[in-house]
Amino acid sequence: MRKVVFTFLVISLFASAHLLIGQSHQTTKEEQAVLVADQQWEKASEAKDVDKAVSFYADDGVMLEPGTPIVKGKDAIRQAWQRFFADPAFALTWRADAVQVAQSGDLAYTRGTFDLRYSGPDGKPASMHGKYMTVWKKIGGKWKAIADMNNDDGQPGKPAEGK
Amino acid sequence: MRKVVFTFLVISLFASAHLLIGQSHQTTKEEQAVLVADQQWEKASEAKDVDKAVSFYADDGVMLEPGTPIVKGKDAIRQAWQRFFADPAFALTWRADAVQVAQSGDLAYTRGTFDLRYSGPDGKPASMHGKYMTVWKKIGGKWKAIADMNNDDGQPGKPAEGK
Repeated sequence: MRKVVFTFLVISLFASAHLLIGQSHQTTKEEQAVLVADQQWEKASEAKDVDKAVSFYADDGVMLEPGTPIVKGKDAIRQAWQRFFADPAFALTWRADAVQVAQSGDLAYTRGTFDLRYSGPDGKPASMHGKYMTVWKKIGGKWKAIADMNNDDGQPGKPAEGK
Repeated sequence: MRKVVFTFLVISLFASAHLLIGQSHQTTKEEQAVLVADQQWEKASEAKDVDKAVSFYADDGVMLEPGTPIVKGKDAIRQAWQRFFADPAFALTWRADAVQVAQSGDLAYTRGTFDLRYSGPDGKPASMHGKYMTVWKKIGGKWKAIADMNNDDGQPGKPAEGK
């Protein structure tokens, strides 16, 4: 039964991955595999499943979060996700808008947008809408995030700064 | 003479690219080519050369800047860089810490850190230290940025938020 549910989930994710991306070309099988990984990761975030969320990173993966220096390696990444999930107000969802895979099928990237709710510095509910990008590497036949970054879209009319 | 200077510059960039990256493996020729592109782009930023800075993006490239929604395509990207350079306090430098290239040599990524000085919202000089990542695609034999993102490291002790 579990296998049936999982198979259905994967098929659903493939189907929705296909529909989600507004790219001009038909997504390839490998692009769909990366999108499925991206979506399964998102489901792990929705479920606040630390083990699952962390499993999508490569062992030497990095998180590039706003407001903090680079987070390197799975132990540090696990601690970061544990902190996220420890906040009762935390809710993070995202959706890929684009995917690219190298012809050799060993490197890929996704980007998209996210919505985050969390407890602000004053303890009050806060929210953030922004964008992310993830670089993926195929390791042992599975797509793993080697670098994952995001930033906020800010308030309309506010000038942007940064690289 | 110009060609000599250019050749020297390229050799210097190759040499420094080689030294800059603290990766455990010897950088490959293609990794060096991506690092050279990253560094030439940085020089264009230092020189406040809009045409040159924009030339490193693919035609359908995107900028993912903090505080503003996604910036898509060269016209919008040019306007963003023009705004950056129009600020007399603007000074942006960066340096790659890591590079990965697909085996097929058509997709790559760099990441590193940047330092930015600019006029803050109150007009006073402001600064930001942060990190960036860029996804590169080889187009017509040249490495072009298809997506470029950054965020700030924040203040020590301040909790991070984001995807």
